[in-house]
Amino acid sequence: MSKMVKNAAGRMVPTEVNAVPQTPYKGVGQFQPQGRKTAPSVAQCGDFPADGDKRVATLKEALRKAGLKSGMTISNHHHFRNGDLVMNAVFQAAAELGVKDLVWFPSAAFPCHKPMIEHMDNGVLKRIEGSLNGPLGAYASHGDMDGVAVLRSHGGRWQAVQDGEVHIDITVLAAPTADAFGNATGDRGPSACGSLNFGLVDSLYADKVIVVTDNLVPFPCVPWQIQGNNVDYVVELEQVGDPDKIVSGTTRITKSPDRLLIAELTAKFIRSTSYFRDGFSLQAGAGGTALATAIFLKEMMREAEIRARFMRGGSTKYMVQMLEEGMMDYLLDGQTFDLEGVRSMRENPNHLATSPFTSYNWHGKGNFASLVDFVVLGATEVDVDFNANVVTHSDGKMLHGIGGWQNCLFANVTILPIPAFRNRIPVIVDEVTTLCGPGELIDVVVTERGIAINPLRQDLIESATAAGLPVRSIDELKREIEGIVGGPPAKPRVGEKIVGIVKWVDGTILDVIYETS
Amino acid sequence: MSKMVKNAAGRMVPTEVNAVPQTPYKGVGQFQPQGRKTAPSVAQCGDFPADGDKRVATLKEALRKAGLKSGMTISNHHHFRNGDLVMNAVFQAAAELGVKDLVWFPSAAFPCHKPMIEHMDNGVLKRIEGSLNGPLGAYASHGDMDGVAVLRSHGGRWQAVQDGEVHIDITVLAAPTADAFGNATGDRGPSACGSLNFGLVDSLYADKVIVVTDNLVPFPCVPWQIQGNNVDYVVELEQVGDPDKIVSGTTRITKSPDRLLIAELTAKFIRSTSYFRDGFSLQAGAGGTALATAIFLKEMMREAEIRARFMRGGSTKYMVQMLEEGMMDYLLDGQTFDLEGVRSMRENPNHLATSPFTSYNWHGKGNFASLVDFVVLGATEVDVDFNANVVTHSDGKMLHGIGGWQNCLFANVTILPIPAFRNRIPVIVDEVTTLCGPGELIDVVVTERGIAINPLRQDLIESATAAGLPVRSIDELKREIEGIVGGPPAKPRVGEKIVGIVKWVDGTILDVIYETS
Repeated sequence: MSKMVKNAAGRMVPTEVNAVPQTPYKGVGQFQPQGRKTAPSVAQCGDFPADGDKRVATLKEALRKAGLKSGMTISNHHHFRNGDLVMNAVFQAAAELGVKDLVWFPSAAFPCHKPMIEHMDNGVLKRIEGSLNGPLGAYASHGDMDGVAVLRSHGGRWQAVQDGEVHIDITVLAAPTADAFGNATGDRGPSACGSLNFGLVDSLYADKVIVVTDNLVPFPCVPWQIQGNNVDYVVELEQVGDPDKIVSGTTRITKSPDRLLIAELTAKFIRSTSYFRDGFSLQAGAGGTALATAIFLKEMMREAEIRARFMRGGSTKYMVQMLEEGMMDYLLDGQTFDLEGVRSMRENPNHLATSPFTSYNWHGKGNFASLVDFVVLGATEVDVDFNANVVTHSDGKMLHGIGGWQNCLFANVTILPIPAFRNRIPVIVDEVTTLCGPGELIDVVVTERGIAINPLRQDLIESATAAGLPVRSIDELKREIEGIVGGPPAKPRVGEKIVGIVKWVDGTILDVIYETS
Repeated sequence: MSKMVKNAAGRMVPTEVNAVPQTPYKGVGQFQPQGRKTAPSVAQCGDFPADGDKRVATLKEALRKAGLKSGMTISNHHHFRNGDLVMNAVFQAAAELGVKDLVWFPSAAFPCHKPMIEHMDNGVLKRIEGSLNGPLGAYASHGDMDGVAVLRSHGGRWQAVQDGEVHIDITVLAAPTADAFGNATGDRGPSACGSLNFGLVDSLYADKVIVVTDNLVPFPCVPWQIQGNNVDYVVELEQVGDPDKIVSGTTRITKSPDRLLIAELTAKFIRSTSYFRDGFSLQAGAGGTALATAIFLKEMMREAEIRARFMRGGSTKYMVQMLEEGMMDYLLDGQTFDLEGVRSMRENPNHLATSPFTSYNWHGKGNFASLVDFVVLGATEVDVDFNANVVTHSDGKMLHGIGGWQNCLFANVTILPIPAFRNRIPVIVDEVTTLCGPGELIDVVVTERGIAINPLRQDLIESATAAGLPVRSIDELKREIEGIVGGPPAKPRVGEKIVGIVKWVDGTILDVIYETS
């Protein structure tokens, strides 16, 4: 694992991980990338069927044709979420082909991927490169995985592939609809999931691209979210996803009185700023508190007679409703969380699928995330310097992925609406267990006991105070909460083995995660 | 100019052009590319404005910020056609900045770009890399240009940039609508031209990308045909294009009786094949004969009660009408030729902007062109081996660009409807003056005096003969025409200096063009 050095956030991080040299975090915007993007091999049409029919009979045959060998890296998008029926079949086929030591590089893993543990135990799969949660997170947290989990944001995953830090040998992209040429879309078909854009970078940079579908249509499959011109093989399967589990369909506004209070305070805070004006923009997640915030905000927008230029988010029926009611011009969608979102993306030209390239990639010429006025995010912990954690709790266990969270911190006003404590464990702490977001990018913490505003944002302190909102210092909030629950959380009991690293958006290492019992 | 070698088509071609080593044509599909695609430098968002506003005050300032230096290559798309008001301004600004020896790499040049001759005479511009016609074609044909004109197809231009054969230092992309982040579209705004996709490859691979617009909208500009994430600077100008000249608006069906006969024969020939069936596909250009063919075909489709799955083309009101009347499912549009095409692309989700990547790039994993059943193309000459010419006439003068012509030859059935002679000069010859398309890819030549079918396509000979169409051998046709006009055309009077080369779709040299007086 090489030696440990202290990074610009004061965290000790390794200089090498999984046999790849690493750069310690240098501060926001302080790491200057060198060199050129990675580039795939030049193909020629003469090596592909002139009639455009790239179908092969089975997944195993496609993997064989793609040159699957031991040690290769296999990737996929996670748009089927917990309803994915493809990736377990891929590694089963790999096992039958007798290959070993594969690396799995998904854009996210889900509890349905529990069979990967068996593949790791029997050596087909060496390790998983990506955020881990559920049974896979527990496996890695216990130190059972051979190698270190590399936790990246959605934008960081694009950056890592684009910059050549992760080379994808074969990607397998499941598609709710596709043609035999490989054009593919997620917005229609029996397994419709909305956008396929988390697989876009894989389609652009992987050596071999396999599209798998259960709904083959005559060329052209429209829209071509994935372009057939980047695809090598197409495989038809009986079913690629379980529709009941692909979209949650159950995303609900919180009913907890405390959460509702936090949501209302968040909306009032947004209204108090000078950025709440006609043509503003907002990104909110699909969590219960974020959804409730959007509902409160909607009423305030009506009262103020203003509309948003755009909203971003995992889309839900609530966002779709606001789009259709004319509360915003455009809905810029990173991933689609329910069937109304899928329908709207398919039907409404003002509901646009975005990709981690347009939205989040830090190693581009700007991205959409920094153009957003307000972003409403969650966190497991925040410390008195406004640093925040989103992947572990105070017990140190690797529980959540980063998602787009780090990328969104670049919004003009970053707001974390969080409860003061969870299960009598304070959420505001002296120092976060795992550093995921530098405090300088986090502007506001909204709890049911008051609003803490980063001293770097005097503008926000002034407007919130003038609006009569309960602005309090974060230290004062922390003391009050500790008074209620009887003190700060216990230090996590962790071992000496590093089981995960947290990458910053630029590919440098922000922090590490140690094994827990 | 290095030594000359004989290529696989029997033409003598140089091994080096404009100081770049060249590969002689090796036969269709015989050249196997090596290595990886070129790749632009890795950028980082920290070097770009966090609020996404990339505007700079003037074109000159943008060129200066982009690091304009003598010897650089500057590119642009040609979607404004003869109405372009930007590129002359770019080179005027470059002249004022005192740089020399620039290379201009447009996707096409037009008569409005005549001022480039002055820039070549005074040394600001060293040469133009691209197809040349009108006054620029005459200038180059006379041997007045310093360097050789490199004629590429639309797909060949993508291939050349993608493969790193042409490195673009700065691209200037004029946009009918854009936002300050650089997202840009051509389908709306006072200078609307439809698609901007001929500039897509420039936006992906150029070191610096400047978007120029006369219609700035608040972020996001939708659709983002050009992605702001690839853009460095945005410049607002009073007017970027002359709407009267951007779209022709005058594309008309031929009224010539001979041409109408050729068009009708072409349509009847298409109907006679087994590929004329429900779900077929067709690409036709915007020339008068091609348009007339489509009109005849439309009636035959109605009679046969079949519809097309898709049609491709420069779009015109005739194609739009067929789309809106349900004669096809999708219109796949390479460039938009009239205002009805622009409107349809903006309004109709089944009218899709395609790019040279999806449609034509030979160095991809397949392209759309080879999936087309019938393509109807023009030619200046065809020889008895079905080789065809599209860039010179029998006098050897460089008069036309290649456009998508070479790329389209990969359709299942390639048809050239051409008059038997023009100005009493036969069009069917012993050997084409300039080889642009290998005979093995050209299936049918339709003249007012009969239909010649390539002996390689016995299937087509059989079906056309069975349908009672006037099938004749190409030698017989040639003899008959020569009998009428008094013999074959005179050999062109050319000098010894090579003024242009014709690239094949894979980047190899197919033929050369010599200076003419």
